[in-house]
Amino acid sequence: MADESILNKINSPSDLDQLSADELNTLSDEIRNEIVSVVSQNGGHLASNLGVVELTIALLTVFNTPKDRIVWDVGHQSYAYKILTGRREKIKTIRTEKGLSGFPKRNESEYDAFDTGHSSTSVSAAFGIACAGEINNDKHFTIAVIGDGALSGGLALEGLNCAGRSKENLIVILNDNKMSISKNVGSMARHLTNIRIRPSYLDAKNKVHSRLDKLPLIGKCLSRIISGMKNWIRLNFFGHQKTMFEQLGFTYYGPLDGHDIHQLQTALKAAKRSRGPVFLHICTTKGKGYEFAEKNPKDFHGISAFDIETGEPKSSSKGYSDVFGEFMCEHAVTDKKLCAITAAMSMGTGLSTFAKKYKSRFYDVGIAEEHAVTFASGLAAANATPVFAVYSTFLQRSYDQILHDAALQHLHVVLAIDRAGIVGEDGETHQGIFDVAFMNTIPNATMYAPSSFKELNDMLYTAVYKSDDIVAVRYPRGGELYLPKDYDYNGEEYIFYGKKSADTLIVTYGRMFSYVCLSAQKLKEQGIEVCILKLNKIKPIALDSVRKSLRYSYCYFFEEAIKYGGVGESFGFMLYQNGFKGKYILTAIENYVQQAKVDSALQSLGLDTHTMTEKILKDRNRSENSGGK
Amino acid sequence: MADESILNKINSPSDLDQLSADELNTLSDEIRNEIVSVVSQNGGHLASNLGVVELTIALLTVFNTPKDRIVWDVGHQSYAYKILTGRREKIKTIRTEKGLSGFPKRNESEYDAFDTGHSSTSVSAAFGIACAGEINNDKHFTIAVIGDGALSGGLALEGLNCAGRSKENLIVILNDNKMSISKNVGSMARHLTNIRIRPSYLDAKNKVHSRLDKLPLIGKCLSRIISGMKNWIRLNFFGHQKTMFEQLGFTYYGPLDGHDIHQLQTALKAAKRSRGPVFLHICTTKGKGYEFAEKNPKDFHGISAFDIETGEPKSSSKGYSDVFGEFMCEHAVTDKKLCAITAAMSMGTGLSTFAKKYKSRFYDVGIAEEHAVTFASGLAAANATPVFAVYSTFLQRSYDQILHDAALQHLHVVLAIDRAGIVGEDGETHQGIFDVAFMNTIPNATMYAPSSFKELNDMLYTAVYKSDDIVAVRYPRGGELYLPKDYDYNGEEYIFYGKKSADTLIVTYGRMFSYVCLSAQKLKEQGIEVCILKLNKIKPIALDSVRKSLRYSYCYFFEEAIKYGGVGESFGFMLYQNGFKGKYILTAIENYVQQAKVDSALQSLGLDTHTMTEKILKDRNRSENSGGK
Repeated sequence: MADESILNKINSPSDLDQLSADELNTLSDEIRNEIVSVVSQNGGHLASNLGVVELTIALLTVFNTPKDRIVWDVGHQSYAYKILTGRREKIKTIRTEKGLSGFPKRNESEYDAFDTGHSSTSVSAAFGIACAGEINNDKHFTIAVIGDGALSGGLALEGLNCAGRSKENLIVILNDNKMSISKNVGSMARHLTNIRIRPSYLDAKNKVHSRLDKLPLIGKCLSRIISGMKNWIRLNFFGHQKTMFEQLGFTYYGPLDGHDIHQLQTALKAAKRSRGPVFLHICTTKGKGYEFAEKNPKDFHGISAFDIETGEPKSSSKGYSDVFGEFMCEHAVTDKKLCAITAAMSMGTGLSTFAKKYKSRFYDVGIAEEHAVTFASGLAAANATPVFAVYSTFLQRSYDQILHDAALQHLHVVLAIDRAGIVGEDGETHQGIFDVAFMNTIPNATMYAPSSFKELNDMLYTAVYKSDDIVAVRYPRGGELYLPKDYDYNGEEYIFYGKKSADTLIVTYGRMFSYVCLSAQKLKEQGIEVCILKLNKIKPIALDSVRKSLRYSYCYFFEEAIKYGGVGESFGFMLYQNGFKGKYILTAIENYVQQAKVDSALQSLGLDTHTMTEKILKDRNRSENSGGK
Repeated sequence: MADESILNKINSPSDLDQLSADELNTLSDEIRNEIVSVVSQNGGHLASNLGVVELTIALLTVFNTPKDRIVWDVGHQSYAYKILTGRREKIKTIRTEKGLSGFPKRNESEYDAFDTGHSSTSVSAAFGIACAGEINNDKHFTIAVIGDGALSGGLALEGLNCAGRSKENLIVILNDNKMSISKNVGSMARHLTNIRIRPSYLDAKNKVHSRLDKLPLIGKCLSRIISGMKNWIRLNFFGHQKTMFEQLGFTYYGPLDGHDIHQLQTALKAAKRSRGPVFLHICTTKGKGYEFAEKNPKDFHGISAFDIETGEPKSSSKGYSDVFGEFMCEHAVTDKKLCAITAAMSMGTGLSTFAKKYKSRFYDVGIAEEHAVTFASGLAAANATPVFAVYSTFLQRSYDQILHDAALQHLHVVLAIDRAGIVGEDGETHQGIFDVAFMNTIPNATMYAPSSFKELNDMLYTAVYKSDDIVAVRYPRGGELYLPKDYDYNGEEYIFYGKKSADTLIVTYGRMFSYVCLSAQKLKEQGIEVCILKLNKIKPIALDSVRKSLRYSYCYFFEEAIKYGGVGESFGFMLYQNGFKGKYILTAIENYVQQAKVDSALQSLGLDTHTMTEKILKDRNRSENSGGK
């Protein structure tokens, strides 16, 4: 069968030009099979990728990539694009260490025009590329492909507002699959629904266009004239209201069937002929072609490895997100002021049950992290208790809102920071490694880091019921790790665990505590006893914990977060300022972290049990060889 | 005249109810005079405040404040509101130390529902307040007043997208003065123009309403029925296209004359009767009633003290912004790839001339700092050289875009960070004290801090022509301060200045260098010589400069920026890690900084010459008394 496949013959986009319409359809099926197969093994974004196979083929046949540049918003729908732009052989490595990225990467292929990962950046980036084209006298097209979910992001709306006045060869393609990661919310979604239910006037127009195109000499000129008639046709024949995108200055085509390659090609050719910015609205089915994903696109948005036959995930166990969700549901029963906010991540953050049970106090704001925090500040200012559950990496979007709206006014906003620390296969754009450092810069803010479900529960309680001002609880992706049997959470701001009279202290917080405990065990097997200081409250750091650390000769700090401005730097600085005379050795993250399984990434960062242990042993040996301290 | 004035009789909003229509108009004039008088003395936002006098009166007569809650977007138009809500006596203290804030402050008055300062927050905050109202069973109204400029901000658009589906008593008032701080840009502005030129259908409707309202028993009910007819009337009688705000789910009223109190009152009453969210579009004249401001609203947006008779500022001298603007113009002549971006601050950032001369490479994106950075990243990815000139405080909005779009891709984006450090009278929301700390967390980023115009020029040259990746140059509001005659900028990453063999080292950067030099002089007069280490490149810190600092017994660091995650902490940490045995004393900013003149604010922070000198002298004496080090 492999020999028969069309896909095997495609080494670059130009090979697509030889294929008939039927062959392109067959190719779509083959690509889908390939994607389902790969994602079932490696995990990844399935539903979004299955939705844009035809669009990808149409784009690559109509445009002259990589000279024409395609910016994929979020980028979690670029698998077919990767397969067709010379990366087919490597697609099996996607999202694995040193393999292809699950997102576009400029350093991976010249076909990737712009790195994406976070939502809603494509219009701004594409418009920038188009403007640079004008500066450099480069007439090629720039295309942004953006989903309807991403349109709820302020950055995308800012981009549309600016690009709508563009004179450049800019085409924005709205991939409207009637949902974001969660069910799409907000008025924009309703507006799209209103557009979708009306007949597409492009059908009629295209028939005219395609006929005229057959007259090569006069076709292009005439088709422009006809193009100019479109408003007249629309107003008089269909009586349409203008779409919001036309009001923003775009020429609007749509809505189109996003799974009809020929229709897409026709529309893209029409878009090429238009002057000024074009907005092409296509409708697709998320998960298209894989039954389980079509039925449950939400479950198949970002997914771990799964069984192709049953659609069931290969593993699933209780995680921190579940514990958070349970906490919220438990307390919402009696606490009528408790409300939950998510930015299109109700499932990922564990809020699905809360969303159903406490509908009137559940706010899914769409992909709009800035609004989420300012909205939460409004809730808090008027005597409600908002909890914003958000992935660490996306909270980066809310820096000014935390600083300017929440913290400055001493408002009691609770941030439940999920996916804090290394997240693994999503890689550089999604690691939750900056939250600690940027929250550290914010006056009045408090931050907790649990190392177990019990601690998460307790710290959330403290955050919601025993705090003023802005307060964050950060916890990792996944579930609990190893905890020693004799360890017991004390509910305090910090805890010293292990042999207090040792000469070596290891300081850490959050998930790292498990690794440090295992390391301490290994060291003990080698005859070296250490003490561990686990910080429960990581901002502000309890001065008391610093003072009690002064007596140690060696103080190691292991931090699963960016080093600059992190807790390790602060703790070290405080130690020294209080007269610490020993050796302070900080291991934290110093740069963006590439995709890899969590354990492997931690290892490369020196944050795994083995490397920790070796490091401490080596220092110890060196010190003994040099006559000790 | 004072006795005759109506304003003198207004102690709270309820006093307005006694006034006739004529008296309300007279009151408007009196308020305007008061505002012009105060701003000419204290500086502040003039044009925006003069534009909303009638709106403020109408709001306070129709709504039941403070139970009904008004959120002023940005808040730079709240002077009339402050005057009429019991703060008339204190209005002369506005923007002065311990005086009234130039922005709404919840801790200043119960009439201030939400603190603002940065643009585009009002809809989100007001919607949050309205939702909390539902939770707490509070039926009062929440009103957001937002300018057309602020509508270009993504946060406002996110807010509208969410609030458009609200069932709450939420009213958004668009104060459309046809301009933002700079001339308004983007498609939204064009859309507003399209709306403005059409006849308001509210006129007709209101006549019906007001007549019906005279029949008290059946009026309200009937007026609802009539209200329901509005779409029919509009479609059939006026043939209007729906506005974008209607497409977003709001009931739209407008456009209205924002200087006609009666018309405003009628519309506000209609808005109160409507169910679901209302969008009220009013047109005002920025600077209304003060000739110079009406003619030049841009110059009278945010302004220093000025002469009422001539409209001329009382002082004006060359500032860092001017030097930046000159640099850009000078190099744009030969460098055709150099482009400038501003977020509605072309004048404030010194780009006015560039904007005129190099129109095709000048991008005013409106109040959209996130878009600005992602757009710049697009430009850089396609081989142009973007320079984004932005106030430090507003760059907070771009944290994720710097991290995720620019730095991660190693794109050469230049940030010209203006108003870095203490800005003075604008106070807490506008101090430029966080940029250093949040830029510090970003891998690949470089940051420079000049202490003179010459240094700014040189550092900009390095940033634009000798750098890769993201690079920032940060400089203060205003102009050059004292520099010793024998000081000469060396073009290196750092410079040791003064007596190198001294036992005391003072480390600093940027504007603080002037204060430190003056302090060194004072110390010299007392017989104490010190060495100064001035960091030119503040990120990353040159390890070499740290090593050369190890020999000092006392090391003082004075930093005009937030302490947590700042350069002072990093430098200190590096010092200690490299074996420093002396005393390290860091003075930096530990919290939000209240409004005051720059010098006074610096003094309260221990960052003025006198306090620095005293501190060092005191340490010295203490150390001598205890036998010296």
